Amino acid sequence: MTFHEDHPREACGVFGVYAPGRDVARTTFFGLYALQHRGQESAGIVTSDGRAAYSHKGMGLVAQVFNEENLSPLKGHLAIGHTRYSTTGSSHIRNAQPTLIETMYGPLAVAHNGNLTNALQLRQRLLERGVGLSSTTDTELVTQILAAPPEVWGSDIFQLNPDDPVPDRWMVRIRAFQEIAEGAYSLAILTEDAVYAVRDPLGLRPLCLGELDGGGYVIASETCALMTIGAKFVRELEAGEILRLDRAGVSSVRGKQAPKEALCVFEYVYFARPDSVMGGEMIHLVRQQMGRQLAIEASADADIVVGVPDSATPHAIGFAQQSGLPYTEGLTKNRYIGRTFIQPDDNLRKQGINLKYNGLTANLKGKRVILIDDSIVRGNTAGPMVQLMRDSGASEVHLRVASPPVKHPCFMGVDMATYRELIANKYDIPSICAKIGADSLDYLSLPGMMSAIRTVLGHDAGYCNACFSGVYPITIPNWLFADERDKTIFEAKLRV
Amino acid sequence: MTFHEDHPREACGVFGVYAPGRDVARTTFFGLYALQHRGQESAGIVTSDGRAAYSHKGMGLVAQVFNEENLSPLKGHLAIGHTRYSTTGSSHIRNAQPTLIETMYGPLAVAHNGNLTNALQLRQRLLERGVGLSSTTDTELVTQILAAPPEVWGSDIFQLNPDDPVPDRWMVRIRAFQEIAEGAYSLAILTEDAVYAVRDPLGLRPLCLGELDGGGYVIASETCALMTIGAKFVRELEAGEILRLDRAGVSSVRGKQAPKEALCVFEYVYFARPDSVMGGEMIHLVRQQMGRQLAIEASADADIVVGVPDSATPHAIGFAQQSGLPYTEGLTKNRYIGRTFIQPDDNLRKQGINLKYNGLTANLKGKRVILIDDSIVRGNTAGPMVQLMRDSGASEVHLRVASPPVKHPCFMGVDMATYRELIANKYDIPSICAKIGADSLDYLSLPGMMSAIRTVLGHDAGYCNACFSGVYPITIPNWLFADERDKTIFEAKLRV
Amino acid sequence: MTFHEDHPREACGVFGVYAPGRDVARTTFFGLYALQHRGQESAGIVTSDGRAAYSHKGMGLVAQVFNEENLSPLKGHLAIGHTRYSTTGSSHIRNAQPTLIETMYGPLAVAHNGNLTNALQLRQRLLERGVGLSSTTDTELVTQILAAPPEVWGSDIFQLNPDDPVPDRWMVRIRAFQEIAEGAYSLAILTEDAVYAVRDPLGLRPLCLGELDGGGYVIASETCALMTIGAKFVRELEAGEILRLDRAGVSSVRGKQAPKEALCVFEYVYFARPDSVMGGEMIHLVRQQMGRQLAIEASADADIVVGVPDSATPHAIGFAQQSGLPYTEGLTKNRYIGRTFIQPDDNLRKQGINLKYNGLTANLKGKRVILIDDSIVRGNTAGPMVQLMRDSGASEVHLRVASPPVKHPCFMGVDMATYRELIANKYDIPSICAKIGADSLDYLSLPGMMSAIRTVLGHDAGYCNACFSGVYPITIPNWLFADERDKTIFEAKLRV
Amino acid sequence: MTFHEDHPREACGVFGVYAPGRDVARTTFFGLYALQHRGQESAGIVTSDGRAAYSHKGMGLVAQVFNEENLSPLKGHLAIGHTRYSTTGSSHIRNAQPTLIETMYGPLAVAHNGNLTNALQLRQRLLERGVGLSSTTDTELVTQILAAPPEVWGSDIFQLNPDDPVPDRWMVRIRAFQEIAEGAYSLAILTEDAVYAVRDPLGLRPLCLGELDGGGYVIASETCALMTIGAKFVRELEAGEILRLDRAGVSSVRGKQAPKEALCVFEYVYFARPDSVMGGEMIHLVRQQMGRQLAIEASADADIVVGVPDSATPHAIGFAQQSGLPYTEGLTKNRYIGRTFIQPDDNLRKQGINLKYNGLTANLKGKRVILIDDSIVRGNTAGPMVQLMRDSGASEVHLRVASPPVKHPCFMGVDMATYRELIANKYDIPSICAKIGADSLDYLSLPGMMSAIRTVLGHDAGYCNACFSGVYPITIPNWLFADERDKTIFEAKLRV
Repeated sequence: MTFHEDHPREACGVFGVYAPGRDVARTTFFGLYALQHRGQESAGIVTSDGRAAYSHKGMGLVAQVFNEENLSPLKGHLAIGHTRYSTTGSSHIRNAQPTLIETMYGPLAVAHNGNLTNALQLRQRLLERGVGLSSTTDTELVTQILAAPPEVWGSDIFQLNPDDPVPDRWMVRIRAFQEIAEGAYSLAILTEDAVYAVRDPLGLRPLCLGELDGGGYVIASETCALMTIGAKFVRELEAGEILRLDRAGVSSVRGKQAPKEALCVFEYVYFARPDSVMGGEMIHLVRQQMGRQLAIEASADADIVVGVPDSATPHAIGFAQQSGLPYTEGLTKNRYIGRTFIQPDDNLRKQGINLKYNGLTANLKGKRVILIDDSIVRGNTAGPMVQLMRDSGASEVHLRVASPPVKHPCFMGVDMATYRELIANKYDIPSICAKIGADSLDYLSLPGMMSAIRTVLGHDAGYCNACFSGVYPITIPNWLFADERDKTIFEAKLRV
Repeated sequence: MTFHEDHPREACGVFGVYAPGRDVARTTFFGLYALQHRGQESAGIVTSDGRAAYSHKGMGLVAQVFNEENLSPLKGHLAIGHTRYSTTGSSHIRNAQPTLIETMYGPLAVAHNGNLTNALQLRQRLLERGVGLSSTTDTELVTQILAAPPEVWGSDIFQLNPDDPVPDRWMVRIRAFQEIAEGAYSLAILTEDAVYAVRDPLGLRPLCLGELDGGGYVIASETCALMTIGAKFVRELEAGEILRLDRAGVSSVRGKQAPKEALCVFEYVYFARPDSVMGGEMIHLVRQQMGRQLAIEASADADIVVGVPDSATPHAIGFAQQSGLPYTEGLTKNRYIGRTFIQPDDNLRKQGINLKYNGLTANLKGKRVILIDDSIVRGNTAGPMVQLMRDSGASEVHLRVASPPVKHPCFMGVDMATYRELIANKYDIPSICAKIGADSLDYLSLPGMMSAIRTVLGHDAGYCNACFSGVYPITIPNWLFADERDKTIFEAKLRV
Repeated sequence: MTFHEDHPREACGVFGVYAPGRDVARTTFFGLYALQHRGQESAGIVTSDGRAAYSHKGMGLVAQVFNEENLSPLKGHLAIGHTRYSTTGSSHIRNAQPTLIETMYGPLAVAHNGNLTNALQLRQRLLERGVGLSSTTDTELVTQILAAPPEVWGSDIFQLNPDDPVPDRWMVRIRAFQEIAEGAYSLAILTEDAVYAVRDPLGLRPLCLGELDGGGYVIASETCALMTIGAKFVRELEAGEILRLDRAGVSSVRGKQAPKEALCVFEYVYFARPDSVMGGEMIHLVRQQMGRQLAIEASADADIVVGVPDSATPHAIGFAQQSGLPYTEGLTKNRYIGRTFIQPDDNLRKQGINLKYNGLTANLKGKRVILIDDSIVRGNTAGPMVQLMRDSGASEVHLRVASPPVKHPCFMGVDMATYRELIANKYDIPSICAKIGADSLDYLSLPGMMSAIRTVLGHDAGYCNACFSGVYPITIPNWLFADERDKTIFEAKLRV
Repeated sequence: MTFHEDHPREACGVFGVYAPGRDVARTTFFGLYALQHRGQESAGIVTSDGRAAYSHKGMGLVAQVFNEENLSPLKGHLAIGHTRYSTTGSSHIRNAQPTLIETMYGPLAVAHNGNLTNALQLRQRLLERGVGLSSTTDTELVTQILAAPPEVWGSDIFQLNPDDPVPDRWMVRIRAFQEIAEGAYSLAILTEDAVYAVRDPLGLRPLCLGELDGGGYVIASETCALMTIGAKFVRELEAGEILRLDRAGVSSVRGKQAPKEALCVFEYVYFARPDSVMGGEMIHLVRQQMGRQLAIEASADADIVVGVPDSATPHAIGFAQQSGLPYTEGLTKNRYIGRTFIQPDDNLRKQGINLKYNGLTANLKGKRVILIDDSIVRGNTAGPMVQLMRDSGASEVHLRVASPPVKHPCFMGVDMATYRELIANKYDIPSICAKIGADSLDYLSLPGMMSAIRTVLGHDAGYCNACFSGVYPITIPNWLFADERDKTIFEAKLRV
């Protein structure tokens, strides 16, 4: 029994800080440390002391990339940082972020969470201008677009809102970028003397603002990074907003607006850390409520409720509370599981090697179990998980999923899966139940999930739930839909 | 708020396998993978194909030490492996295990879990014989003692029990070793053509036997390693038992006996993985029962029960079930926390950096909380933890510890602490409560803990609970008691 | 006695090959291996198979950077390579060459030997266009200039010579680059399906063409690289020439022309390998002739002639032959001397530690010695060398330098020294002699050196001997003259 | 044309120093640096401050193994060091020296140059005692033998010479070791408070004593190490001598004596650095004399004399002086040649890739050349070398070898070759000449070589010239003669 990870993968965590008198590189290090769950492939920090920019990037976890020797030369009073997850194909230090270039107006560094849906066109425009590109990342596109005057992109200087401050050069360029870019982006941008934070008009990826005790501001993908470094949470950025942190404090322009927000609903389901606040409330509470709603919609006659650790524990606690069934642990997870490249041989596979989970037979023996998972994407884990429950003595296994069936891919920066890989795109629920061998299977309904969020948050913002509903908040170009598309399409020319 | 780890540290995990036709190095790799919680400093594997022995060791986690390139040359049909934890002073590849030497009768490798209380005398005897020693480990002592004929040690050939098989050369030597060694040892020993498993007469450290489906046997510190590789659990070794795995299957001699067993009770409290079976029942169940017993002895008027993740979760679930109070999560643990050498600066410290835990304010706000921890050793974590609960909104914090106060050091292979470092050795419970700032504090009683174990196991074996009771199962030499003793006493002469 | 290296440092070696059916990466590896003396800091190879480009670069010697694992993925039938030396400040993998980018017309890679004297203006023009730059190298400038259409640079399409072939897109761009670039450059350029070789109009840095036995062509900085891979030497490129290697074979356009050639004369003095052919004859022969001319101009009454190994051995042999004095070895050089960061302490310094050279007392004792060196730049080695000869028993030491006094810095790609550092810029010959403690000191005269070259080559080409004469073949901008100029001027903004 | 190295390989360089008040680790570092030519596989240093011993060892060149970080913790006032060459089979950090163990009487470290011809018996005696061995080196045998009281080895306390000082414990043990050991050994031994230097009774491997200016003594394999650190050469150790360096200065006992000395004559031919003094005179002078003698015995009608760089240059200079023919360089050697694992492909091989040497055609064209080499062992280099001379234009190539034909292997610590591999063991001179394609071939005669040494040294010491003469100074056990013997015989049991 081998357990593959059956979760979509978040692309990135971003962080920024403007705080004279503080060790901003160190502050960024600990901020990234708290955002590690948003990307484990590479990490990087760029700082500025107002005269020059300093940078260090590397492959691996934040704690592996940085040590005192490479952190201490990162001087200055402003910084941005990035943790990255990526598909294997483009896993290379060359693609690590933040990117850093020199421009007419000094250093410019960009850290990016999201995916530009018109990256191909933007890339083409840069190449046509005669700008050579050295990587295949969206972030290099953002950087080179910002390096050129806005006129180049044919976008008029945007109209200020009456209450906007007079924008500076970089705000103008960022605003122009918003006009020509499509898709998802939460950006942390560093110039010689300011940090900028930007969200796309739909607010697809999260971004929040915090304040440091002795003065100074930080921005981060999630509030957990603020808590970790002891910063006070101020507010989440609005969709389309452009924020500048500099010696004058915080200034903001509204930026490009969309008719409706569309925050990625999967942040609530799985991505965000349970202790982060998003939309005004803590993620853990939303997940408990999803579990409660699931209990209302789809309970079962059973003895105990167990969750798949660790991500589905909040949902399972909520389910147990609502259903009145006792909550307990049914599985242990090997805490020291690291990336190993050693593969089991046939003998081990045949005898059912379990690297990640073991069943707690003492709790399961003879019990009718409701097993809660937060989501099912490809469906390759659910079957072995049900089997493990049975092998551990469960007499019945009722699988309940605290989100709706995932039927559509994401094109806004989440590595979900292709249409062909999504089990719920190919099969209906009874077929899936049969395939995974559960006694029963049910999902939380889409209205149920949205109502759970609304219940906790107390208001109804706009969300992107395209992976469940197929209703995308922006037009997705056809080439992105092509299931067969070569993921390395951008990489065809450079194999660095 | 910085959270130090306030747990004793287990010294080692051992593993062995005899299985012609299997990739024994790979099997050992996955066995060690499951025993990773028993030691994260170094890992090693030695195999034999009956003609030569093959070895690879390295510093770090099992998954870091081994890759296909260094694993595949480890040929053969028998193997032993080791994961090691150690104090910083002797953290060196030179001390990694298993040790491997050539003897008159071919290769000999030893993997050791435990601590010899008469190591100093044994070391002296070897040096007096004119044997140069190249490390400061007990394991080198074991190896060099076994390399010499038993007569050298002045121990007569032991008397066979009527039902013992006729012992071979190595069994005789191992038996002689038992006569001169004192303290704790669970050994996996590899010779040219057999694997031996040995427990000390008190059975201080655990060791169990499993059977592979297609033929072959394995030994491991815990049953979770058997489960991981798909082996069937056969039985735990008896105290003093010497087991031989070879082409004839399994043979056993009783070995040296003590009046009473004395399995380390901290295996139940914290060391062993919750899914391991020890003394016939699953650890998770014992811990739940300890939580239940704690609820009986020392409940409190409160709204919710939360455990310190992950180790105190089973105890908290048991407490909640017994007390009828709702169980929920109150803390998140950063899953990606790795070893970082980056230290927070004063600014970050002042603002209360939280790398390891964040409070789930949504669950705690305004609540009277019972916080369950499995044990308190030095007491340096409990204070910040209580403070974190209050900062996260808890109106009251009642700390309950699911084991008795730790008042005495361990000299049998567990890195506990010195007398001076143990908070319960210096202060009584009210003083500790005041120091950590809890609204109330209580521990499980020693009789309560022992009865919880007895209740689940259904019988009363012998245990070592010296760290709680001060009653050591063997005579501890005075020099080990000296609180000021230089831990590097053995290392004074060699700084390799 | 510590011996610093007192030689100017060559910036780079370049190599290129177009040869379907061959392992071009491997061929390039061995070509770079032979050019190792031109740069030991980093090495890199880019190949193309007509569809995509493949690249590997690294810090260190060619043999350290490449192994089978990273060499074998470099597929294709055309390749360029580079070895680089650089000042410490910019010693970073980011500056390793060849650079590789994607353009409108596919991949473009550049390997560069030389120095652009108008780099600052070119850099400014790129930044003004809004092209962000990610390094501080001239090579990135070349690459981004070539990436844009030639109109961008305001240079008209050049006039073809009647015998030039119709140029392709890249030739046009390279030709346009020659119009706006000033200074020294020998370039190897790789596109999707061709390799280009380019020399600046003055021919400051060398470049030659070779032919492979089974078909295919190579270009290299020196002929020793052709010999090493078994290629036949065809000819040296002319100054200003642009060569294209592709499936049609070799085609050439004359490129931008200068009134007179100006090959760096230091190639004859020290840079080039003695077995390379340059200007039609082997370097070793030219150096012997310089030694002969030195003997004519400035012999001395002495017993033996010894050279400073290894670079001055040919000059010393020539001197001995001309003077009729016996040649012998007077010094040994530690062949295994590698880069060590261990510094001698005061004790060792006081006792005269000799890491690099030891005197051969047996050959020197009581002898009047003529010591030949090829050049003196800073003059920090000559004194200890003279002292070493005396300590080894020489009764007299007459130092003869086989090139004129170096009085001026180089701004064309050689790391010579600043005005202030050049000993002959500050002192006259008697003062230098006094400072270094020789019994007598003399240099080869400038006319003598030029006539030695002319004698061997049989013709008089143009040379740059500005470091001796102060007559620069191009206008040097004032900022480059500023002795105090911060060498890191370009790096002020990016500390990557 | 591929040039393999056709020289025997020296096993090791040893160094020791006793010098209170100095940085002895640093002094040892620079001493090893000068001895790098005696072994490039691994390097190590052990120091003592009188209380504890400190050690660092590593694979690679001395400059690669040591940096400030690992050198500075090596405290103390006495030290020994080692550089090692070894056959591939046992190339492992485990076999790096010095070995260091703890004994009854404190730390004991050993650095060894040579080979024990009765290693197999000594190994067996240790195993029979019940001492486990963890490596396959002679040095571990030496160390464990010295760790035990001399009675164990059945050797009586040796008789003092009237003028010997009263020996200490370690001198007695070393003396006992000399009684049971056979073969070649020059040892540097470190105890808690003294350094010992030991030569075998035949004095097969060299060892010398030097004095430091401010007080303190050093020992080293060659005098070049003394010169490098600025120490004054005192004298070479006598065969069998045991020297002690301690706070009292230097004391000596004569040790075990053999009827006649037998210094390895290959030290004069090739091993020792040309600037080292051995037998009272500088190696360079002896090699020149060998060249002169060769000119007397076997000159040829030719135009120029060239040597194979760098080792045969002194011989060639001597030959030229004696013959009156002009000396010049005929070959260049790539100075940057490092260890590369990249192999030429067939194309490159066919076209004659020359990585190591290029011919100086300008010097060779149309010339009748006498090519001097210092020795021929396997004969795999001579053919390509002759061919290279012809390809470079030589009209005739007369190869002259400045030592006799090598017909016998070495069993005293030099990795020469097996009988089957030695070309002169299989073929007579005319056949060899035909195989390598020279116009003529001649060797220096054995009497001629011995007389050349005698001429320079002015006296006739004893030498081992067994590789030329077949007359071994000690009885070689049959198993060592077995040409087919598995070189890994000692390694059969442990593959660490």
